[in-house]
Amino acid sequence: MPRFRLRLEYHGGGFVGWQRQHNGLSVQEVLETAVERLVGRPVRVQAAGRTDAGVHALGQVVHLDLDRDWPVATLRDALNFHLKPHLAAVLDAARVADDFNARRDARRRTYLYRVCDRRAPAVVDHGRVWHVPRRLDAAAMADAARRLEGRHDFTTFRAAECQATSPEKTLDRLGVSRDGDEIRIEAEARSFLHHQVRNMVGTLKLVGEGKWTADDVSRALDRRERAAGGPTAPPDGLYFVRVDYV
Amino acid sequence: MPRFRLRLEYHGGGFVGWQRQHNGLSVQEVLETAVERLVGRPVRVQAAGRTDAGVHALGQVVHLDLDRDWPVATLRDALNFHLKPHLAAVLDAARVADDFNARRDARRRTYLYRVCDRRAPAVVDHGRVWHVPRRLDAAAMADAARRLEGRHDFTTFRAAECQATSPEKTLDRLGVSRDGDEIRIEAEARSFLHHQVRNMVGTLKLVGEGKWTADDVSRALDRRERAAGGPTAPPDGLYFVRVDYV
Repeated sequence: MPRFRLRLEYHGGGFVGWQRQHNGLSVQEVLETAVERLVGRPVRVQAAGRTDAGVHALGQVVHLDLDRDWPVATLRDALNFHLKPHLAAVLDAARVADDFNARRDARRRTYLYRVCDRRAPAVVDHGRVWHVPRRLDAAAMADAARRLEGRHDFTTFRAAECQATSPEKTLDRLGVSRDGDEIRIEAEARSFLHHQVRNMVGTLKLVGEGKWTADDVSRALDRRERAAGGPTAPPDGLYFVRVDYV
Repeated sequence: MPRFRLRLEYHGGGFVGWQRQHNGLSVQEVLETAVERLVGRPVRVQAAGRTDAGVHALGQVVHLDLDRDWPVATLRDALNFHLKPHLAAVLDAARVADDFNARRDARRRTYLYRVCDRRAPAVVDHGRVWHVPRRLDAAAMADAARRLEGRHDFTTFRAAECQATSPEKTLDRLGVSRDGDEIRIEAEARSFLHHQVRNMVGTLKLVGEGKWTADDVSRALDRRERAAGGPTAPPDGLYFVRVDYV
């Protein structure tokens, strides 16, 4: 059974998240349904990472096994045909080794969080950013973000329902930059805990508002309890940008 | 009666266009309703330019007269409160001279047209770009676009229902650039004919596909008839970016 890797884009707004659930439509379900329509039998897909309801993907990666060696351009186009009208699309497909695993083999995951930082609500970008009407100090946020880079116990930024075996992770990068009214927070790591990016962003917002200092962020990290961290930022601003494998 | 200028953002997808119509909700109607809720009487607003159904605005400008001298930050925030849940927002408000006219005094209008140029459909940007699955030659499009710059009779790119007194316009700039899978077409002029940008974009797409040359574009322009031009590009990719007054 030839194994394929797909790179996916999806708009998180219309889904209950990546993973199949009983309470609504998941990206996994619409993709597996598209594959089944194409090949005539149920096929399981496995993703590099789960995303929550409302979280977008610009480069989610999945693997799946098919009965025959589909030309990758045909596979991409046929799946996109069957994915309509859902807001999910296959950007490209590739034939990979039989033991490739989209989740286990991932060496780096990159997330982007977009904040619309202005008085007026975000309307053209509705559902695609976190609207924060109060002006944030992006330089202070960038400063505080550096306190979180490196290898730490990230329990303070971990959702209660997180299934990771260990709260220790290495955060390779947490960059904050301003572009006009938009603040962009980029996070890179081999892997993340559940809600880690959104919890870090919610904490950095407190710094941007002047309520917390960078030292407060360090202290919250050291406390190793979720209650010590800031609130969880909403899913709308979060994008799963890419997964690297080498 | 003090006169105010408002700068507006709106998502064109939910509206029949700028202008009041009987067949659905217009931006003008939701804005005038918001103003009426605020001041307790009907107030007419006039815009720098009409936009069609589906066309977005990042910086539409309107003027209106109010009974009293509202603080501009209060006016902006109060109108945004009353505009909810519609995808239209007041970016800022300013007190202007009593004879300021948003349409007549505009010295330059800037539009952006976004093309998503890739095989996979646009899903995160659904409704916000024109999806063209065939790879376009952006350099050839940029070359052809220059043929349209300057003062011309733009009848070839004018909608039948256009109400302008003359088809002669000066197109100050028509720039085409590629950024990855996105082609961005920027158009600047004192004023445009109805559908002019979309008709120019639809024609440039023919060039990008290799069906037309830059000379074909020049010949179409010289023919001065709509039938000589390319098709009208869809509204989704069009953004009314800004209006300049000095």
